[in-house]
Amino acid sequence: MPVGTNATVKAMSPDEMKDLGAEILLSNTYHLYLRPGHKIIGEVGGLHKFMKWEGPILTDSGGFQVFSLTNLRKIKDDGVEFRSHLDGSLHFLTPELVMEIQKALGSDIAMVFDECTPYPATKEYALNSLKLTTDWAKRCLDARNNPPLEKGAGGFYNEKQALFGIVQGGVYEDLRKQSAEEIIEIEFDGYAIGGLSVGEPKELMYEMINWTAPLLPNDKPRYLMGIGDLLDVLEAVSAGIDMFDCVMPTRNARNGTLFTSQGRISIKREEFKKDSGPLDPECGCYTCQNYSRSYLRHMFMSREILSMRLNTMHNIHFYLEFFRRMRESISKGEFKNFREELTPILQNNFHEM
Amino acid sequence: MPVGTNATVKAMSPDEMKDLGAEILLSNTYHLYLRPGHKIIGEVGGLHKFMKWEGPILTDSGGFQVFSLTNLRKIKDDGVEFRSHLDGSLHFLTPELVMEIQKALGSDIAMVFDECTPYPATKEYALNSLKLTTDWAKRCLDARNNPPLEKGAGGFYNEKQALFGIVQGGVYEDLRKQSAEEIIEIEFDGYAIGGLSVGEPKELMYEMINWTAPLLPNDKPRYLMGIGDLLDVLEAVSAGIDMFDCVMPTRNARNGTLFTSQGRISIKREEFKKDSGPLDPECGCYTCQNYSRSYLRHMFMSREILSMRLNTMHNIHFYLEFFRRMRESISKGEFKNFREELTPILQNNFHEM
Repeated sequence: MPVGTNATVKAMSPDEMKDLGAEILLSNTYHLYLRPGHKIIGEVGGLHKFMKWEGPILTDSGGFQVFSLTNLRKIKDDGVEFRSHLDGSLHFLTPELVMEIQKALGSDIAMVFDECTPYPATKEYALNSLKLTTDWAKRCLDARNNPPLEKGAGGFYNEKQALFGIVQGGVYEDLRKQSAEEIIEIEFDGYAIGGLSVGEPKELMYEMINWTAPLLPNDKPRYLMGIGDLLDVLEAVSAGIDMFDCVMPTRNARNGTLFTSQGRISIKREEFKKDSGPLDPECGCYTCQNYSRSYLRHMFMSREILSMRLNTMHNIHFYLEFFRRMRESISKGEFKNFREELTPILQNNFHEM
Repeated sequence: MPVGTNATVKAMSPDEMKDLGAEILLSNTYHLYLRPGHKIIGEVGGLHKFMKWEGPILTDSGGFQVFSLTNLRKIKDDGVEFRSHLDGSLHFLTPELVMEIQKALGSDIAMVFDECTPYPATKEYALNSLKLTTDWAKRCLDARNNPPLEKGAGGFYNEKQALFGIVQGGVYEDLRKQSAEEIIEIEFDGYAIGGLSVGEPKELMYEMINWTAPLLPNDKPRYLMGIGDLLDVLEAVSAGIDMFDCVMPTRNARNGTLFTSQGRISIKREEFKKDSGPLDPECGCYTCQNYSRSYLRHMFMSREILSMRLNTMHNIHFYLEFFRRMRESISKGEFKNFREELTPILQNNFHEM
């Protein structure tokens, strides 16, 4: 899922996302709650209409964003008190409010409010965090099953909105197992693994993915939250993960780092100054079909908006193409080959600064 | 002519500009000389190919940009010594170099190197400035008629490149007349009026336009440089001006100021927060056909790139539509009505901050 934090995938229009073959976008509860406010979006008919995206949208619960405000938040049993990163105003996010927000947004997949366990965390901390997450998950489901908000009071309601549970447990195998069991017991439409890629070593992250993914039901989507490094994706898919989201393709694009069939390229390199060839000769995206490395470098060095557009378009194309090919390899029973073929390319940062 | 300073109309792709009906773009000699360098653009096959724009391009001479570097430049008989606004490096721009740059860029219309007379300026200063401009204009024509640059040494040459002369003379009627006569005497493919909208009162600017435009040949294009306020455009068209360029539609768009059928709007106004209507109900542009004022405000407040894209698209559409309708009114002999109809709308800043 490409990430559209503020109700737009940065630098892209929804038409372009559709043309690129994006099937679902992620948007952020935390950000949209603070600005413009979920009630406003509800009043104008929900997030799809607001941002002009007809495909599915998954909204995260805001849990991760609030968790990231390390010094600005206080975790309580009831919810999380925090100060807005925009204006310092005080807010209190609860499972009920998070569900109200996601109802008003009308996303197709809502996420439960969880406490993202930090790394490192003691086992005691991780256990408490797990218990809180289970408690909040129940409250989220209850709130979801409550009647929809009154129309006219900022209410919009997507009747088919799915709700996904989130497994926490830090880097402790037994706690991951406990969390998975408790969350599965509640019964959700899909299950996510949260609290990874928060500072732990990669081996530990892989261990947790490989341990936790098989615990989740086979017949429901398994979603690994916030992971998008494609080497990690290959590992996670091996473990049975189905869904991902990450700002990697879009954020890297804006910083001039581009993913190609030969590896990772930094477009600002001096050697591209006079390079009239395409960014990636094997790529069929609009950027590669129309522009030279020389022009892309010039746009980037001049800080032109078109630089962000063209780079983002390319990186999203690369990612979506990667996932399309990966799915195809899975259907054909050739995922192992796919992984072996792609791994060295993904490891090649041949023009990294 | 929409302005594409750095070889891109800010926030737009060339395809979008074509779809909007743009027929010609302006690009900047000064900027492209400094970055990425005209030789690079020449080597990759000229500016059209570089920026992927198939329509005509006019390149200014850099005279105005150098003139604007008030404290960083020294005007000499031979040319202008200046420091780059990018890195402080020292450069010396001469009529010959300006022509070499424009040859390498391969624009369809090149402009002579002139000295833009400041306001206020004594008559003595304006006279010297006029003489320098005439002298440089001759040198530019000589340089243009020289054989094209060697291919392979950064050379690209548009054989059909036109060259326009520029009339200076400050705010002195007799000097404007003298300048016009001297420049027309040299014989160019078109004639521009320079040195206006540089701080003088509007009445004085109008006086100069009305005085100078009729002095220029009837059978060649008359171009008023850097003017884009549409009220000024109406005045100038009455006086017989054919061509304009200005960053007004694009720069205002990025600052959230939008031109509509009802007047000028600032999209950040609080009252648009919940406004689900289109920016301009009478407008057929992509932005107005697809997005609400509420969304446009949200994009602007969130400083999203899409804000600049959607706003720029709308303002360029408004401008190009204005010019299309104006041309039509002229062909029908109804320009006077057009001017009377549009003037109150253009004066209406009903949502200005």
